Amino acid sequence: MLPKSESLSPLPQRLEHDLEELARIRDPESGGWTRTMFSEPYRASREWIRSRMVEAGLDVHVDGAGNIVGVLAGRRPGAPSLVTGSHTDTVESGGRFDGAVGVLGALEMVRQLNEHDVRLERDLLVVDFLGEESNDFGLSCLGSRALAGELVAADLDRHDHEGRRLGDRYSAFGLDPAGVLGAVWSRSRPLHGYVELHVEQGPLLEERGAPIGVVTAIAGIERLLATFAGRPDHAGTMPMGDRRDALVAAAEAVLAVRREGCGAPVHGVATTSRLISEPGSANVVPATVRMHAEMRSVDTAWLSSATRRLADEIRAKAEGYGVDVDVQWSTDNVSVPASGEVHEVVSGAADALGIAWEAVPSGATHDAVHMARLCPMGMIFVPSRGGRSHCPDEWTELEHIVTGVQVLAATVLDMDRRTR
Amino acid sequence: MLPKSESLSPLPQRLEHDLEELARIRDPESGGWTRTMFSEPYRASREWIRSRMVEAGLDVHVDGAGNIVGVLAGRRPGAPSLVTGSHTDTVESGGRFDGAVGVLGALEMVRQLNEHDVRLERDLLVVDFLGEESNDFGLSCLGSRALAGELVAADLDRHDHEGRRLGDRYSAFGLDPAGVLGAVWSRSRPLHGYVELHVEQGPLLEERGAPIGVVTAIAGIERLLATFAGRPDHAGTMPMGDRRDALVAAAEAVLAVRREGCGAPVHGVATTSRLISEPGSANVVPATVRMHAEMRSVDTAWLSSATRRLADEIRAKAEGYGVDVDVQWSTDNVSVPASGEVHEVVSGAADALGIAWEAVPSGATHDAVHMARLCPMGMIFVPSRGGRSHCPDEWTELEHIVTGVQVLAATVLDMDRRTR
Repeated sequence: MLPKSESLSPLPQRLEHDLEELARIRDPESGGWTRTMFSEPYRASREWIRSRMVEAGLDVHVDGAGNIVGVLAGRRPGAPSLVTGSHTDTVESGGRFDGAVGVLGALEMVRQLNEHDVRLERDLLVVDFLGEESNDFGLSCLGSRALAGELVAADLDRHDHEGRRLGDRYSAFGLDPAGVLGAVWSRSRPLHGYVELHVEQGPLLEERGAPIGVVTAIAGIERLLATFAGRPDHAGTMPMGDRRDALVAAAEAVLAVRREGCGAPVHGVATTSRLISEPGSANVVPATVRMHAEMRSVDTAWLSSATRRLADEIRAKAEGYGVDVDVQWSTDNVSVPASGEVHEVVSGAADALGIAWEAVPSGATHDAVHMARLCPMGMIFVPSRGGRSHCPDEWTELEHIVTGVQVLAATVLDMDRRTR
Repeated sequence: MLPKSESLSPLPQRLEHDLEELARIRDPESGGWTRTMFSEPYRASREWIRSRMVEAGLDVHVDGAGNIVGVLAGRRPGAPSLVTGSHTDTVESGGRFDGAVGVLGALEMVRQLNEHDVRLERDLLVVDFLGEESNDFGLSCLGSRALAGELVAADLDRHDHEGRRLGDRYSAFGLDPAGVLGAVWSRSRPLHGYVELHVEQGPLLEERGAPIGVVTAIAGIERLLATFAGRPDHAGTMPMGDRRDALVAAAEAVLAVRREGCGAPVHGVATTSRLISEPGSANVVPATVRMHAEMRSVDTAWLSSATRRLADEIRAKAEGYGVDVDVQWSTDNVSVPASGEVHEVVSGAADALGIAWEAVPSGATHDAVHMARLCPMGMIFVPSRGGRSHCPDEWTELEHIVTGVQVLAATVLDMDRRTR
């Protein structure tokens, strides 16, 4: 007989200690907390995670794609496995909770299971996925992407801003590129379900006073590269009406991007992250501007129509200024809904524990997007103070992390029992 | 008895040959025609100019500020001198005419004077001013600025983007920094007047079908550095209404700059040349933006009120987006009117030659701004095709340059006779 989930009470001090220890491993040259993919601090933090996994009683290996996988063997060998986990890399000058909470929370859950002599029916895999955050190669979630078979040979030929090839970076990090491509899970093991604990990175849970978010869907991301081509006139002599000012056309586009985001019916956001204008001299009218923007939504139909509307509006405004514009959209991720079954299990677990929860979308992308290709997927969110993330101010209260681990444990216990 | 000015007919082939020879001396690593201040191509072109001056019969020296000065001695030693000239440095990837026309045109005029045995009453100084174009040190017109006593010791401590000190750059170019500061002309020689032949760099003459422009005034320049401070939120998770997006506030400012420029009553232009946004990551809302803009006008009252209005509008718009903004204006040049007397001489010379002329403002700044501190100043413009300048497309028809040199010669002959 399995215990009631209430009896699995994660120890706050142990969680806090782990979070503090991991936070110590960071790039001293960068602000905030920085452990970017393939960096030395990231290598060191992975060694530390591996040791903690072994200490917690997991059977640990690093797979061909560089994911650290800790296995807690279940009673029924061969039964489809349960998977949980997250990542321990960070953005440049990031925070202490994004990713770390899901990995260290899963570890604390495993310790609780072992200390209470709870044996699961199924194997439980705790994964620290390689390189989840955005990087120079334009491919986030490298580890989970590889497991889902969504990393292809051509991706290894991508280059970063310093001209380094992704395949070579893998090799330098001790990973055989052929092994990375061969690490696909769907071919090698049946999976029962995936659930990931993560900080919300947005303000909805805090605003609604709910300690737990049950994720409905992960937003799709459409990325925009608009290139404006005007004319580099002398800024002192060319009359205003005779100009073809690429930066003015781009400024109109920035405002159009914002307007589309504000008009989203469900969760939708639109952001211009960067304008690069040339030549940039004080006395020359900007001739070319490259604009990087993105739109995200869990509403696929709206996202598709909004990108079309926005492209039309950007073109029309630019034409009015005599500026040519090339608009290119690329789909980074399509919107992925959470599994209805996992949603039910997570919300049921919270209800059983008497914990208030809210159904929320995820505007950020996660390894869960790729794991959803392999098995039913769900995510558990805990509140982010002020909705802040990807910055040193990122903060989640310890009590909320503890609550998140409780719900994760109850979810794993329930899913473990279920058959399909 | 001095000859009628009609008899001084500049030779088109000689002018064209000189323009072509000078155009050969350029940085092969850069596009268009590039001879930036202190560069090796600039050093070589100055050697070439010096030789041409000697050949033309001028008594040549390089003054303490690095200006190449060729003297054509007049009949009356001690009489206030006449000065003409321009510059031979270029912007990065510039054209073949900006500056060069004024120096090579003056040389052709000197050859004409000598070949027709015309002896002026006054000394005529032909000057190739050092470093007229904008540079990394934020100080254009280095040579004429020094002559006018407007270059001060503190300026030598300015640094360029590579951290090099202006004083050290002077030394490396073979100029003693103390000598640069000591090259002030007002202390050493009385001047009778300054007239500069230059390409218009704008489209007014071409639009009006006039081969000659008589400059009314040189626009004042107010430079803006606005720094927007928002908040670096996660671009996927922070709802639109909760953001403090510095780039959205800056985009509004770019459009406000344009609107103010379009509203100028006389000649007024306003240009945002550059936005630099941080952090620039694809999934982070821009937190800070530095915006570089400028406004120019010959209408001092309008310029002053427009900069105030614009600062207010930028602040109000930014506030609406929850973005703080620091607005700093600095005066690069105040508007300088041409001398009424020189204006009268130039337009009278054109009339006498039967050449149509238009009174036009100069939106670009020139060495004439600083020479106006020392004596009555005027400028003669020749048309720029399509108003294009500071780019490889810059073009002025040879016949227009020839006409410009004729008017310059007639102007010099008339001014030479006048007393004050």
